[in-house]
Amino acid sequence: MRRLTFAIAAVLACASVQAAPTRIPEQALARAAELREQALADDTGWKVVESLTTEVGPRLAGSEADARAVEWAKAKFRALGFDRVWTEPVTFPKWERRSEQAQVLGAHAQPLAITALGGSPAGTAEGEVVRFESLDALKAAPAGSLAGKIAFIDYQMTRSRSGEDYGIGGTVRSRGPSEAIRKGALGYIMRSAGTDSHRVPHTGITRFDEGLTPVPSAALSVPDAEQLARLVARGPTRIRMTLDCGWDGSYTSQNVIGEITGRELPKEVVVIGGHLDSWDLGTGAVDDGAGIGITMAAGHLIGQLRQAPRRSIRVIAFANEEQGLHGGFAYAAARVKAREIPLQHIAAESDFGAGRIYAFNTGSGNPAGSREATAQIARVLAPLGVEYRPDQGGPGPDVGPLAAKGGAWAWLAQDGTDYFDLHHTADDTLDKIDPKALAQNVAAYTVFAYLAAESEGSFGSEARDVVPPKE
Amino acid sequence: MRRLTFAIAAVLACASVQAAPTRIPEQALARAAELREQALADDTGWKVVESLTTEVGPRLAGSEADARAVEWAKAKFRALGFDRVWTEPVTFPKWERRSEQAQVLGAHAQPLAITALGGSPAGTAEGEVVRFESLDALKAAPAGSLAGKIAFIDYQMTRSRSGEDYGIGGTVRSRGPSEAIRKGALGYIMRSAGTDSHRVPHTGITRFDEGLTPVPSAALSVPDAEQLARLVARGPTRIRMTLDCGWDGSYTSQNVIGEITGRELPKEVVVIGGHLDSWDLGTGAVDDGAGIGITMAAGHLIGQLRQAPRRSIRVIAFANEEQGLHGGFAYAAARVKAREIPLQHIAAESDFGAGRIYAFNTGSGNPAGSREATAQIARVLAPLGVEYRPDQGGPGPDVGPLAAKGGAWAWLAQDGTDYFDLHHTADDTLDKIDPKALAQNVAAYTVFAYLAAESEGSFGSEARDVVPPKE
Repeated sequence: MRRLTFAIAAVLACASVQAAPTRIPEQALARAAELREQALADDTGWKVVESLTTEVGPRLAGSEADARAVEWAKAKFRALGFDRVWTEPVTFPKWERRSEQAQVLGAHAQPLAITALGGSPAGTAEGEVVRFESLDALKAAPAGSLAGKIAFIDYQMTRSRSGEDYGIGGTVRSRGPSEAIRKGALGYIMRSAGTDSHRVPHTGITRFDEGLTPVPSAALSVPDAEQLARLVARGPTRIRMTLDCGWDGSYTSQNVIGEITGRELPKEVVVIGGHLDSWDLGTGAVDDGAGIGITMAAGHLIGQLRQAPRRSIRVIAFANEEQGLHGGFAYAAARVKAREIPLQHIAAESDFGAGRIYAFNTGSGNPAGSREATAQIARVLAPLGVEYRPDQGGPGPDVGPLAAKGGAWAWLAQDGTDYFDLHHTADDTLDKIDPKALAQNVAAYTVFAYLAAESEGSFGSEARDVVPPKE
Repeated sequence: MRRLTFAIAAVLACASVQAAPTRIPEQALARAAELREQALADDTGWKVVESLTTEVGPRLAGSEADARAVEWAKAKFRALGFDRVWTEPVTFPKWERRSEQAQVLGAHAQPLAITALGGSPAGTAEGEVVRFESLDALKAAPAGSLAGKIAFIDYQMTRSRSGEDYGIGGTVRSRGPSEAIRKGALGYIMRSAGTDSHRVPHTGITRFDEGLTPVPSAALSVPDAEQLARLVARGPTRIRMTLDCGWDGSYTSQNVIGEITGRELPKEVVVIGGHLDSWDLGTGAVDDGAGIGITMAAGHLIGQLRQAPRRSIRVIAFANEEQGLHGGFAYAAARVKAREIPLQHIAAESDFGAGRIYAFNTGSGNPAGSREATAQIARVLAPLGVEYRPDQGGPGPDVGPLAAKGGAWAWLAQDGTDYFDLHHTADDTLDKIDPKALAQNVAAYTVFAYLAAESEGSFGSEARDVVPPKE
């Protein structure tokens, strides 16, 4: 998951177009409570994650496994009884990781556990390491002061339920390399944006500003960053880092979509989903096999009802979230082109792991009109330990572009206390998911999606033309 | 650490030669209590581990870092004020790890995190995986049934304070490859002998029985073993494993020894120590930088006393424990040759991590005579949370050969609850050591070594000629 959307939420919350209050019928609320209990006892979500992470495994966007994941998703939607299954193309530049290694040179020679940042070029960088406590400290270095050297930002992320410190950790990754190049550095390394203490470096996308010549850029595992900091404190420390990776043409993957057809307003859709791609180091269990499992299972459970929901439930397995929300942007662009933004009743993405959901809210250009319906949903979610938090939250990453175009969004906040132990590492594997916590997520998504689909009135989706978010 | 010595302990405990009871003077007990409190407040042990793991890093026996470690140990003994510092040569076959990789082939293609077992030959093994729950299950397979296949023992070690399940896990590693070859397998993989859930496979030495042609042999990380088990359960699963590693001539390293000279019986020595080598994947913090730090610090603290202890304190940084107790056998052989076994007053090795010591005992050919002295030491250890456990325990790995030749031993049992999360993995790094627990170890070793050196009478060391232990 990437964090870019809270600002949007705030922007949208400022709008205050008046509309008729949105309500959810009592009968639907009663049925949702039944669905909630059924979902808690159901293991469909777990089975879906198990299947994806085991049978496909790591699925870097643009890799051979990307295509297998698309076929897997189509087959899984069909097996789960979705009424319609289709794909929509998503084209993006393809980045590959082939090999990576680094070592301390000289009297304290030893290997370092690193991983290339997504977007890094290939190359060997050898030089003295200059350590900085933060991105700001690097920015404050004199121009040219890193000529022939390797910049090292040693920022330690703080653990929290909201994962809010990823705002800083993620920026060290996305902005650090360009700042290092501006100071003359021939390579860039960072302490992983993570909260664990294992030899599993955290990858993730980085970008190089226009006009700069990219340099090899990588993350050290947290223990390796601590080791390097100790060595640098002892005296001048040279390292050599050799990365074989890089961009190689473009690739067309697919957003894979499964839909449960609504009984009254089938063209109006409640969108839920996760992203199908993962980084290549782990099997993408918490990022974002969990989101795929949670939302496929929620759609499946609603699809099993004797009476279909009023509106359609659309579950999207988004392509290539990790390298720039490519699937999310493609989905939003296609809706704008087809003038379908008002049909996107409300949208939510699960992309913050597999921890329990603890808070809920919705937002749009017309939040006041749907506040009571949001509170109604929250009351059905409450027995799951979910708190209604009006005026908080925002859309998940891949529905951010849709929200930016005027789509209403829902926020189902997951407990991310352990998320950055695993995020973008080799340790992101199935064993890290608690099946009971996953079922709680399925229950919350099922309740939300069903009740949103049953609502009388809108959550505020309307065609807008705000500036799309940029990372 | 390797576990081979408990059987010896039992054998030695059966002997019952009578001798005058051994006692420790009251004045020494009082001084030991002061030393204990001083050690708890001292950070020498921590600084030693920090220095070794940072400045030398991984130090595989026979590698370039082995020689750096020897120089480091000599310099550190001198800096810590030891009266005498010397080395004794230890020659052994040299094994190298160069690269290793494995992947699932076919429809579920994905990489697997593996590490070659020490002693494995180089080579590529490709074939269908046949999974076994245990070594016994592999032994029960029909002869030739694994022709063209890869044997996979999927035994999960159980966590405990004593780490006793390593008896089984370690045997899967040491015996598995030979059993696999007997059934016709062209390769061997195992679930790591570990209790963690990270993508850090556990290496360790294995051996191939005489007359068998070795095959590539490796350990999967625990999550990878679970993944492979799920794939095998789905249907025939082929993997390819490519190891570049192997034996390459011989190497002569050194046991590095520092001694505090005794005031009355300087030729009689209390031996404490750890092993200087480590596996190459981590920086050898818990295995066995901790043992080096604990025992160097204990010797240093005793050396700082205004009055030297009655006997000498000999701290040994043993060479190449990991690949067969080479340093321990060399030390014992040299003592036998010099007829110095009776001068080895008592010996203890710290080689089970950095967890707190919870139990204490001594043993020898004459346990009855030294039981009161052992109880006296235990009473000074008690405030550290250490319990006296008569008739339990045994010598640490590198003093096992000495005990087998008749040397008395002491057992300072460390809490190994987390030890097999880290043992022989990339995760064995400094951050895993709790400085307070380490200081408790230093306090216990200081008390033990000082009081043993002050004792009146013997702990039972006498030249013996029992069969040396074999793994």
